[in-house]
Order: sequence, then structure tokens, then C-alpha cells
Amino acid sequence: MLNDDGGFLTLVNGDSRIRFHAIWLRDNAWDAATRSADNGQRLIAVRDIPQKTTISAARLIRETLSVTFAPEDKTVDYDVAWLLQNAYDRKENISTGWTKSGVETWDSGLMTRIPVADFETVSTDPFELKNWLGQIARFGFGKLLNGPVEDLALMQVVDLFGYVRETNYGRHFEVRTEVNPTNLAYTGLGLQAHTDNPYRDPVPTIQVLYCLESSAAGGENMVVDGFRAAECLRAENEDWFNVLARYCAHFEYSGSDGVILQSRRPMIELAPDGELIGLRFNNRSTAALKDVPFDDLETYYAAYRRLGEIIDDPAMEVSFRLEPGESFLVDNRRVLHARKGYSGAGKRWFQGCYADMDSLHSKLAVLETEQLVATQ
Amino acid sequence: MLNDDGGFLTLVNGDSRIRFHAIWLRDNAWDAATRSADNGQRLIAVRDIPQKTTISAARLIRETLSVTFAPEDKTVDYDVAWLLQNAYDRKENISTGWTKSGVETWDSGLMTRIPVADFETVSTDPFELKNWLGQIARFGFGKLLNGPVEDLALMQVVDLFGYVRETNYGRHFEVRTEVNPTNLAYTGLGLQAHTDNPYRDPVPTIQVLYCLESSAAGGENMVVDGFRAAECLRAENEDWFNVLARYCAHFEYSGSDGVILQSRRPMIELAPDGELIGLRFNNRSTAALKDVPFDDLETYYAAYRRLGEIIDDPAMEVSFRLEPGESFLVDNRRVLHARKGYSGAGKRWFQGCYADMDSLHSKLAVLETEQLVATQ
Repeated sequence: MLNDDGGFLTLVNGDSRIRFHAIWLRDNAWDAATRSADNGQRLIAVRDIPQKTTISAARLIRETLSVTFAPEDKTVDYDVAWLLQNAYDRKENISTGWTKSGVETWDSGLMTRIPVADFETVSTDPFELKNWLGQIARFGFGKLLNGPVEDLALMQVVDLFGYVRETNYGRHFEVRTEVNPTNLAYTGLGLQAHTDNPYRDPVPTIQVLYCLESSAAGGENMVVDGFRAAECLRAENEDWFNVLARYCAHFEYSGSDGVILQSRRPMIELAPDGELIGLRFNNRSTAALKDVPFDDLETYYAAYRRLGEIIDDPAMEVSFRLEPGESFLVDNRRVLHARKGYSGAGKRWFQGCYADMDSLHSKLAVLETEQLVATQ
Repeated sequence: MLNDDGGFLTLVNGDSRIRFHAIWLRDNAWDAATRSADNGQRLIAVRDIPQKTTISAARLIRETLSVTFAPEDKTVDYDVAWLLQNAYDRKENISTGWTKSGVETWDSGLMTRIPVADFETVSTDPFELKNWLGQIARFGFGKLLNGPVEDLALMQVVDLFGYVRETNYGRHFEVRTEVNPTNLAYTGLGLQAHTDNPYRDPVPTIQVLYCLESSAAGGENMVVDGFRAAECLRAENEDWFNVLARYCAHFEYSGSDGVILQSRRPMIELAPDGELIGLRFNNRSTAALKDVPFDDLETYYAAYRRLGEIIDDPAMEVSFRLEPGESFLVDNRRVLHARKGYSGAGKRWFQGCYADMDSLHSKLAVLETEQLVATQ
């Protein structure tokens, strides 16, 4: 059904009535002159669409909506299923801090079902790789077992889905500690759960940690869902959630190796429509707050303190000990990680590197598409 | 001066009175137990600071403010210059869309003073390198002349400040066109100014383009300051600016090479306090808008169209032709780039790669610090 001036049409689908504007339909036409048949990229810009584009005719034949545009006098066919999938005419009362569909936040209850897979299996079986990547997309982390115990084996983990993000720490970095019981400074030293490198902009969106040697007692790895922590904070006190999202913190790292990395970003990052898209939490590299107004500073610190308490709460934590050949990766915009203290004699040698979530999501989407086609 | 409950103190500096909270001062203490002398990283977390921290005494001796905290009974000295530099007690009426200090937006008037340097000079002279990087930080792009005409010379450009961001396109990509006048599709084909890879999240924040061969007529490179374009849009119509910042667009690229990259981000990106931090503008990979409410969709398209017109306006454009051994780089969150059409017989061979602005800013900060020390 067409409105009077041809500005939009209404698709009636059972009880629902979904409207589409002329300009939206024209811009999203799928004909060969508008979209590349090869890669779906749009061949025109908005400047190529007449300003006063209207719908002069529309008819529905089975699953195809055929629309004629004026003044171009151009007719384009649309797949109705595609239109319904991309419909923007909807009422949604989504609250600030919502998370994308498919994201499942968790606490220590996840201990019994940690996302885990076998290194060899995900390396050879695309179905198992898809499942493992799917769990990482859902939970923000994943473990791999039974990998090779060899220098740079972590690169094979990254090769499963993407590319290393090289930084001033190199393509990878060594996390090597010799526990020496005569030096107490090196025993029992845990790290508070944190996200890595908030002083980088953009932050690395994936961190991989790969165990090559682990003969010291303790030193478990621990992860906390930052999205769940933010949700808890919001449930307790909405003002506290809002103040951490509203103002930018400063992060800084000045190493002795010729870097002065600085960023100005909020601890809780939201998309403009309130989607929770990232957390930055790292006491070590949080610089002095400069952009929180005087009147809100005490609220800000109360919120920051409480967020830290939630993160430190054992009820939030999933922990595991990695043996040589085992590794895990975290979505560094979402999941915080920590190392527990360790003790006694022995060695601990990990290798770490950074990578990015967008290529992981891409690999997952490709595998899902291929496997959907294969089962049809 | 201390307030009654020790919650904050007031530093009187000539006519100005600047307040600092107890919790802020304690968190930003610079004593060896709070901050690492090596790298300035904070050794404590907020959880290590008593919740009811107050100031029990404070005195100013020349340029040092000495503060005693209760209940810890800990005294910490602060450099007054550092306090003034990091003061957060200020009234600022900054408007939405503000840009960081040091950023200078531009239009075609910049043609007469394009940020440019000599490849050999910036490779050997840290002072000249600092100046060139400083111009890139200010204007969002820079050219380099007289570089080597050899495969992968662009990697030497990246080595000046940072690291390549590898993607599915490789560590670098080839932009090679054989102009064949019998195939009109390959002549005169310009590209609208755009930012690269908005379907990636995070987007690459730097693109380098390096010319190795350029015997075809035309094919000039062109850059437009996206921050200036956004400022122009806002000056014309604040609602248009706001609608592009308020709602997320969708970007997608599905190549034949096994990638399905998707992102959901606004075309105009603001920090939560309104700082303009990024632009995404790329007609080819803009997917159907799904998150703009029906009632705002026509306004959104009007704004998107107008932003494109501003970007297309020759008054906004800085253009130059690259000869073999010449290159340029853009801040891909800010500056749009385009290639003009070319014609006639000949070859055009560029190599491109991505990198990140944070390491460029870091290198610049290091050089500035070193050179400040050297001149003192």
C-alpha cells in the first residue's frame, strides 16, 4: 500500500504493518546498476538518487515486492524476506546498556561449561571451529587444549580466524617468571582483573595467552565478564553506571622503551543508542581524571570503586589453570582477565599476542553461511 | 585551604580558586608506594584506598603542595604545576562536535601549505620527523617526497612511527590499473571521497598510499577534512549533524575471498562528552539502515545527502598528483580520500597499507619530550 505522496509504502504481513520509505528502498535496490553482483558493494552514492524520489507504483507478487520509482521511472524487485529482515519501522524500548543479540553475560556459574575446544579438532574441522568461535562471540572468551608446546604456537591460534595486531610490544610478547622463593616479591603476586592496553586507541580487541611452561604452584588464570559487571552496577545504581559512561577517563603508559601512549575514553563505552560495547578497567594505567566535573567527581569515584568490587567478587569469576599447550583468548573490550598469585619453586612461561574481533566475527559468519548452504 | 570535612581542598592561584577532592589526590599520589618510579604505572587499585579518605592537613611550600590523608596518616607531596595541568575543576561550555586542542580543520585553502616532508630527511632527522608527525596530528594527513621507487617502500613509511595493521587484504595491498583506452570502464573512473573499511571494527586509523608508477594522465589523489565537513553540516543544520551522530549505520563487506565483515557504528562518532572523534563515510559499503526510527529516516537521509554534497564541494578539497617515490598517509577516522578519474594510455601502480594513529601520537610525544629536554 502506498501513501498519498509516494513517500513510503506499507507492507502488510499478517497483523503487522511495516513501512518503508521511497529513499530507503531506492538506496537499497539490488539491481545490477545499484549493487555489484560480485561483492554486493553499492555502485551509486546518495548523490546519484534524485532528491525528490517517490514511489509511483508497487505490487506484491508472492515473495517479491516490485517497486517503481519516480522520477527515474525505474522498477526494482525486492525479496520480501530480505525486507522483513532489514525493517527499521519498529517500536523498541531498549534500555541503556543493552547488549547485542547473541551475547550472553555470565558469572562464576559458567565454570561448569567453559567454552573450550581441542586445538587439533578446531584446526581441521570447520564445524568444530565454527562452534568454538560461536562460543567466543557469545561469551567473550574461549580455551583451547592440547596444542603444540613450541615457540610461537600462539600464532597458529590467531591463524584460525585472523591477524596479529602488532604493537610496541612486538608481534608477540613473553610472560616469563622464575619463581624464586627467596625473593618474596615474586611469589604470591596476583593481578587485579583488568582489560589490556586501555591507553591504546583503538584497544586491541583480542588477547591470546598461550602456556608453554607451568611448573609453579598457583598462577591460575581468571576471567570476569565486564558486560555482566556493568549490568550489575547498573542494577544497583543507575547513576553510577551512567557517570562511568558519561565522562571520559584518561589512560596512559610511558614505558622506558620510547612510547608515550595516551587515550581519552570512557570506562563504560556505549554506542549512541545505548548499546554496551566496551569496558576499560585497568588501575595501573588509569591517569588522573581531567574531564569529570567537580560536582560529579565523588559519584564517579564511588561508581569506579563499586565496579571494582563487583569485578573482584569471587561470584563473578571463572578460573582455570593452563598447562603447557593450552591457551585462551579474550574479547578485550568485554572480558577482564587476571593472574592469581603463585608460590613455591618453578617456572611459568606464557606467550601473548593481540588480534582483532572483527576478523573473528567475519570467519564465524563465513563458516555459518557455508555450513548453512551445505546442509540445505 | 581545606573545607570543613576534609573532602576537598582549594588551591588559590592568583584570582583563580581550584578545588581538588581528597579521593582524587590520594588516587593520583606520586609516591613510590603508589606509582612505579620506572614507568609511572599505578601500583594500587581504588580498593586499596580507604573508602572514607579525607584530607587532615595541607600546606603549600613554594611549588609543592603537601597533603596528609586520614585515616592512612600518609603525607604526599604534589608538584603544583602538575596539579594545575590536571585540574578538573573548571567550567567549560563546550559545544557538541568540539575537537581536541591542536586539531585544525581545513578546506581547499590548505592547498598552499600541504603538510609535506622529504623522505630522506624525516628518516634521518628526528627534528624534521617530529615536525611532519606534528602536522599529521594537526591536519590529519601528510605527504612524503623523494622516497625510494621499490617494492614495499611503504613499509619504511610505517617504520617511521609504528606498525602495520594486517587485514584480510594482507600486510599491504596492490592498487594497480592498466589504463586501456579501448575499455572505457577503466578510464575516467573516479571514486567519491570516502573513509576506508568502515565495515571493520575497529577501523584502521591510518592508511598509507605509496606511488610506484604513474604514467597515465589524471588520477590525482584528493583529500577532504571530514571534521570540517561535519562542522559545516552542524553550522547549517544542527538536527542533521545530530541525527548522523545519534543513530548507528550498518556497514558491510562480503568479498569473494571468504570474508563477511560487518559493523554497526554511527557515521559521525562523538565521545560521550561531544568530542568529534570519527567519521565513517563510504557509499560502497553502507548496508541497509536498520536502526534509524521510521520518523527520523527522512531527516537521516537528508543529512546523509547534504554531508555528501559538502564532501563533494571543490571548496573542501585538497588535491595533488603523486609521482613514483611519493606517498601520503591519512588519519582514516578523520580525513576522506579519493582518486580522480584518469585517462589515456599508461600505468598506475600504488601500494597501500593500514596502520594506527596511537603509535604515531606516541612517537610524536616521545620526540617532543626528548627535544624539549635537549633544548633545556
